[in-house]
Amino acid sequence: VVRAETSVASPINPNIQKENPKVVDTVTTSSVEKQVAYCRCWRSGTFPKCNGAHVAWNKETGDNVGPLLIKKDD
Amino acid sequence: VVRAETSVASPINPNIQKENPKVVDTVTTSSVEKQVAYCRCWRSGTFPKCNGAHVAWNKETGDNVGPLLIKKDD
Ligand code: FES
Ligand code: FES
Repeated sequence: VVRAETSVASPINPNIQKENPKVVDTVTTSSVEKQVAYCRCWRSGTFPKCNGAHVAWNKETGDNVGPLLIKKDD
Repeated sequence: VVRAETSVASPINPNIQKENPKVVDTVTTSSVEKQVAYCRCWRSGTFPKCNGAHVAWNKETGDNVGPLLIKKDD
């Protein structure tokens, strides 16, 4: 079995806006109704929102990533 | 030069709460003053908040990840 050298890091975003040098998204607090989940695995089909794709990602790779929840409380 | 097989995906979170099966964080809208940046590169020393570590990560790997900004507007 051939393993990658651990010193060689790979991009964590495989295909979201690869023409954009830095993907930054903005959420306004007034847009949040009750609660909304934002993706941190870079594999959501509804990015920047989470669509649950982190579940398959974690299962496939042994990772433990999950979304950022924004909860309306004011 | 030996390359990793592209079918073998690696975890994107190297060391944040690896004892936790899924890292989910919650932000309440009332906690946001003006604007705050949340990390999506999993390399921030102030995770879940962004500390700018995505800049070195992008430079090192050719990636294009950046934070989620939450902006107070209500
Ligand atoms: S789909 Fe990416 S964190 Fe849920
Ligand atoms: S430090 Fe991770 S996105 Fe900025």
